[in-house]
Amino acid sequence: MDLKEKIRNVQDFPKPGIGFKDITTLLKDKDAFKEMVDIMADNLKDLDVDVIVGPEARGFLTGAPVAYAVGAGFVPIRKPGKLPAETESYEYELEYGTDKIEIHKDAIEKGQKVAIIDDLLATGGTMEAAVKLIEKLGGEVVSIQFLIELEFLNGREKFDGYNVESIIKY
Amino acid sequence: MDLKEKIRNVQDFPKPGIGFKDITTLLKDKDAFKEMVDIMADNLKDLDVDVIVGPEARGFLTGAPVAYAVGAGFVPIRKPGKLPAETESYEYELEYGTDKIEIHKDAIEKGQKVAIIDDLLATGGTMEAAVKLIEKLGGEVVSIQFLIELEFLNGREKFDGYNVESIIKY
Repeated sequence: MDLKEKIRNVQDFPKPGIGFKDITTLLKDKDAFKEMVDIMADNLKDLDVDVIVGPEARGFLTGAPVAYAVGAGFVPIRKPGKLPAETESYEYELEYGTDKIEIHKDAIEKGQKVAIIDDLLATGGTMEAAVKLIEKLGGEVVSIQFLIELEFLNGREKFDGYNVESIIKY
Repeated sequence: MDLKEKIRNVQDFPKPGIGFKDITTLLKDKDAFKEMVDIMADNLKDLDVDVIVGPEARGFLTGAPVAYAVGAGFVPIRKPGKLPAETESYEYELEYGTDKIEIHKDAIEKGQKVAIIDDLLATGGTMEAAVKLIEKLGGEVVSIQFLIELEFLNGREKFDGYNVESIIKY
């Protein structure tokens, strides 16, 4: 199946001039959704992953089913103030201003093998922050999986030495 | 396995006096996470579900893996402004003020069998709004699944005539 055909391009969302890659048209299609999960699960099959980490909110949609498929646990990374227990946080720069993400301090045990999954690799700022949080907790990032990669933004350059894979490329 | 033991109670979150049921301690435990998904999938097994709907954001964590497990598609319900294409929205009352959720207009086809999954049944306001949105689009709500039900809030009374199930009860 050509999963790229299942992505909807929404022009001028969330701002004029931006072409948004809408994954909901893929997720609602049971065959496409299954294929996405199976491809990611297959990419992880020899890595003995303990935990899948996904950033809020589309990383939940892609990462949680893959966690089930490979028999791993799932750990959310969230925007500030959403996680109820003690957190580790990381602030990172955007084009204008900064953003911040959090993870529970007890979410990952030292030495656990972690795969991070998100829907889209653009400039890679959020994913870079996720890697730093996981490594600060003592986790080993053994794989980074994206459904979509915007290759012209060169986000992959931030992850030299890591195992980065994406299913759909633009 | 006693899944209730995997839930962490966080006192005074998000406000003083509230005891928050933290499901992240269950999700990160691979065996508990698998058991949660398998129980919900088993509850749905004879219902021929086409689509699982989950409200943002913890409905993504519970609903998306169940969609994969039963071979259904997944449709997100989100806060206003998050879904990129044309939406149907529903405003509902809270104790103080109102809240609003949205679904893509083309997310569900007329006659599709839909199960809605969320982490927690409290007063049931969000779930009631989700049912109305799905029925407005012509979907048939064949099951409503929760990980946790706060029975003392009687939220279940809002869903007379629907098939409502929960795994952990308080």
